[in-house]
Amino acid sequence: MELKLTNAKIITPYKEIERGSVIIKDGIISEILEERTEGEDLEGMLLLPAFVDIHTHGIGGYDYTSWDSEDDFIKNAIGMKKKLIQHGVTTFLPTTVTMPRESLLEACKAISQTDILGLHLEGPYISEKHAGAQDVRYIRNPDKNEVLECVRESNNKVITITYSPEKDLDFIPFMLSLGIYPSIGHTDADYETAVKAFLLGASRVTHLFNAMRAFHHRDPGVILASINFSPFIEIIPDFIHVDKEVVRFLTKIVDIKRIVAVTDSIIATDLQDGTYTLGKMRIRVENGIARTEDGKLAGSTLTMDKAFKNLSSIIGIREASLICSYNPARAIGLSDRGIIEKGKRADLIVMDEKLNVKKVFINGEEIFSSS
Amino acid sequence: MELKLTNAKIITPYKEIERGSVIIKDGIISEILEERTEGEDLEGMLLLPAFVDIHTHGIGGYDYTSWDSEDDFIKNAIGMKKKLIQHGVTTFLPTTVTMPRESLLEACKAISQTDILGLHLEGPYISEKHAGAQDVRYIRNPDKNEVLECVRESNNKVITITYSPEKDLDFIPFMLSLGIYPSIGHTDADYETAVKAFLLGASRVTHLFNAMRAFHHRDPGVILASINFSPFIEIIPDFIHVDKEVVRFLTKIVDIKRIVAVTDSIIATDLQDGTYTLGKMRIRVENGIARTEDGKLAGSTLTMDKAFKNLSSIIGIREASLICSYNPARAIGLSDRGIIEKGKRADLIVMDEKLNVKKVFINGEEIFSSS
Repeated sequence: MELKLTNAKIITPYKEIERGSVIIKDGIISEILEERTEGEDLEGMLLLPAFVDIHTHGIGGYDYTSWDSEDDFIKNAIGMKKKLIQHGVTTFLPTTVTMPRESLLEACKAISQTDILGLHLEGPYISEKHAGAQDVRYIRNPDKNEVLECVRESNNKVITITYSPEKDLDFIPFMLSLGIYPSIGHTDADYETAVKAFLLGASRVTHLFNAMRAFHHRDPGVILASINFSPFIEIIPDFIHVDKEVVRFLTKIVDIKRIVAVTDSIIATDLQDGTYTLGKMRIRVENGIARTEDGKLAGSTLTMDKAFKNLSSIIGIREASLICSYNPARAIGLSDRGIIEKGKRADLIVMDEKLNVKKVFINGEEIFSSS
Repeated sequence: MELKLTNAKIITPYKEIERGSVIIKDGIISEILEERTEGEDLEGMLLLPAFVDIHTHGIGGYDYTSWDSEDDFIKNAIGMKKKLIQHGVTTFLPTTVTMPRESLLEACKAISQTDILGLHLEGPYISEKHAGAQDVRYIRNPDKNEVLECVRESNNKVITITYSPEKDLDFIPFMLSLGIYPSIGHTDADYETAVKAFLLGASRVTHLFNAMRAFHHRDPGVILASINFSPFIEIIPDFIHVDKEVVRFLTKIVDIKRIVAVTDSIIATDLQDGTYTLGKMRIRVENGIARTEDGKLAGSTLTMDKAFKNLSSIIGIREASLICSYNPARAIGLSDRGIIEKGKRADLIVMDEKLNVKKVFINGEEIFSSS
């Protein structure tokens, strides 16, 4: 099966091609041309790799943090997928929060029954001090047996775990031995502990700056350790969780290839302000900002196309594309997507000049078109 | 008059010359040779530009923050000079703290009666919120008449003023019109106010991180504004005021030519632990760390040769030399010193391989030699 997308402004990390074409064969990018050809005319619109969101709890009434039953988890994961596609996300990890053991296992079992890549477990092995919007009642110490059960129940779909390394540094080689990417977050680790965690193989920091020991010039903690040593740095670029100038600063001081945009979105995303839940917590959303009852930020209502717009406004489209597509894919070991390059999956989005998503393709198949 | 220093390891910003020579004529460097010549044999020791300390309150029992009389200020300034030379400092600014008007004017008048370059006024126009070890009773709003009187009394020797820009941004062009370098410090300025201050011509930040609104990822304040916009960034590299890893980070993220080492040293420097004063405040020094009675850091007991050693340990000798000599000179508009280069003042120091000061020259004249 062949598809030709032509007359598009194609964004690759190497260059931007005006009025070029992408030829897709059997779902794979087979050729990139610097000229027009026959095919579907994109009228000069942007053609970008689809977004990858490795940290999303929910969207549009669906979420992966609360449950009535295992079936409910499946329904929510599939619901999330449909909604996320409309924002250009074609690969995502439904993300749990700190839950009781049985719920965690239900979430793991549910994901095994879908075609979704896998899960991000945010907790339960986190710091009580930096729980953020997570329920401290269910926080526990790293538990190898529990993780092994999660891996088994999910059919090997536990992709990444956010955890607090000061609880047990040895848990990092254990996770790595299972092919899980350890991400440091919701943590009170000091500088030295965090550096040790990264040297042991932790590969990411979960939403840098949020839910961790604060930076102080006499106690630089996990923040400076992440900047110095974390292979990937996750941020929520809604300009609410982190000030725009701080995001800009980060893009200046670390290699752009290390920065990973995530939404950390919750059930209320794409819905009206009001009262919702995150796990078992009540959340109030006002002006699109989600908070717990005691005022802590509780995930976001950010979508990836908005994240991309925000980042584009400070660093340009090509760099924003790396941060929203290529880098998150690499952060979970996917080398087959997130970039417009010969041989990669044709997971693509078409955006107009205002950066609105117009079309989405998965494996070269159009699965969404805005009217 | 000619002096030839030979067989020295000469440190310039361009290169390090092993076993080279510096020829001095009439106090000025006239030639730099890459080989040995006749002259004073320095036996392979380091030859460096002498240090410049633009923020020192005192040393070795002398200080410029407390007074009995105008004569006392003169005695203290001259006393400081003698002690500082032993640590390789040949240019320095005695630095006041927040004082009553009459004392400030006495300090200004006193300096006019010495051969010392000039004064640094640290306060009194600072933030009550970030007074640090300064006496809040004497803090006041920026006062043009007072500054004009200081300039007059000092015979134009007010070189730089540390002040808080949120008190009055218009004070910056006023200081600049008098040839004074405005330095932002002891301030609660937010990001926007601080950026405005730098765009208006503030040229430095006083001991970055200390005595200012803390950095927060949703309120990056004067710290990020300084990193982004301040021409010069002052730090106290004792690894106490600022963690060593944070100093290292700073040297990575900003141009090394923007960083200025200062000691912020007090009367207790080079003396035993015990009880001393800073202005009218009681200070306790324990293990060389000076604090107010309520535990706030109160200046330092750092010396410039120690600052140089500390910096050398993380970034090497050549860069440390820029930070301790060339940059502080430029930060107060001196282009005639702080660097080993043809045509510059022969203010030089000789150090052994352990970075101990062995000899000090001012204008090519040996004024100190360690036994």
